Amino acid sequence: MTRRYDKIDLPVSQSRRYLEPGPIVLVTSALGEARNIMTLGWHTVMEFTPSLVGCVIAAGNHSFGLVRRSGECVINLPTAALLDQVVGVGNSSGAEIDKFAAFALTPEKAQRVRAPLIRECHANFECKLSDGTLIDKYNFFIFEIVKAHVAPSPRHPKTLHYTGDGVFMVAGKIVSRRAKFRPELLSEYGST
Amino acid sequence: MTRRYDKIDLPVSQSRRYLEPGPIVLVTSALGEARNIMTLGWHTVMEFTPSLVGCVIAAGNHSFGLVRRSGECVINLPTAALLDQVVGVGNSSGAEIDKFAAFALTPEKAQRVRAPLIRECHANFECKLSDGTLIDKYNFFIFEIVKAHVAPSPRHPKTLHYTGDGVFMVAGKIVSRRAKFRPELLSEYGST
Repeated sequence: MTRRYDKIDLPVSQSRRYLEPGPIVLVTSALGEARNIMTLGWHTVMEFTPSLVGCVIAAGNHSFGLVRRSGECVINLPTAALLDQVVGVGNSSGAEIDKFAAFALTPEKAQRVRAPLIRECHANFECKLSDGTLIDKYNFFIFEIVKAHVAPSPRHPKTLHYTGDGVFMVAGKIVSRRAKFRPELLSEYGST
Repeated sequence: MTRRYDKIDLPVSQSRRYLEPGPIVLVTSALGEARNIMTLGWHTVMEFTPSLVGCVIAAGNHSFGLVRRSGECVINLPTAALLDQVVGVGNSSGAEIDKFAAFALTPEKAQRVRAPLIRECHANFECKLSDGTLIDKYNFFIFEIVKAHVAPSPRHPKTLHYTGDGVFMVAGKIVSRRAKFRPELLSEYGST
């Protein structure tokens, strides 16, 4: 299979299409000459516009300081084909190795932040810290997605969803009930 | 297929097994004689112990007031078999109908909160509001799971993951890399 990584811009308000389903993501960060990648499963969409996402980054992680001090990161979406790289990234420390080299992941220059994009990922969300008031209490970072890149196909890639204990679920099968939705609920999913 | 709903207790610190993968959930609430169900896709695990989960509940939702004023809810995990009920709940308002009756969902008494469990769901997480300081700014509720119930089988049910626009992904296929995990990462997934 030829893998194509050419990406197109995605309106940042549509980032939920990829993040709301809850995939494990790879978060990249940079500070000075240092850079790193970490796996992250504790995140949630918080708003469409501005495009906000909340993430828990444990303070013990090497990435914590890089993200906090730089106030930036990139959330990269790996597909299921990257399972072994995801596990490798999650089981190693950026204090000891360069994870880009160790796991053959290619850093690419972002447009709005200094943290690199991961070329092999299906989508990349450039983030700036929007609200850091819950970092001390919960390690909770509220980011604004300021630029989003996505591979044009497949529209719904298979993604990895972490359950703990080394076990992932794969999501990919699509079921649509679009015809049953009231029009006003199609752009912004609400429920009352 | 005979559906069995008998559930067993789950240690609350293990709730991440079901919530971290990011499924759409049904949130039940109660206040006085009122009760309601809403769909929710914007949530994240925030801590193992106490077992914290953060949820965005839009202020326009009928459930918002019930949850805020009662300080309680139940997060119920529907399987993919409940797709049409999930869509129905998400496309109707508790201000107009009793969703339990409308969608043939059975309320059951919870142990620690007044909001009901949904019998047909695979798991039920009884929640008390732990921190409401971000409700005004982000509609963000930080709950503590105080009691968790789960059906003993299947261990990994197929779940629904919302992408917006009436389209869901189904997660269910399991891939394990347990053997590649460092032991200290198996109970609490970290990455540095």
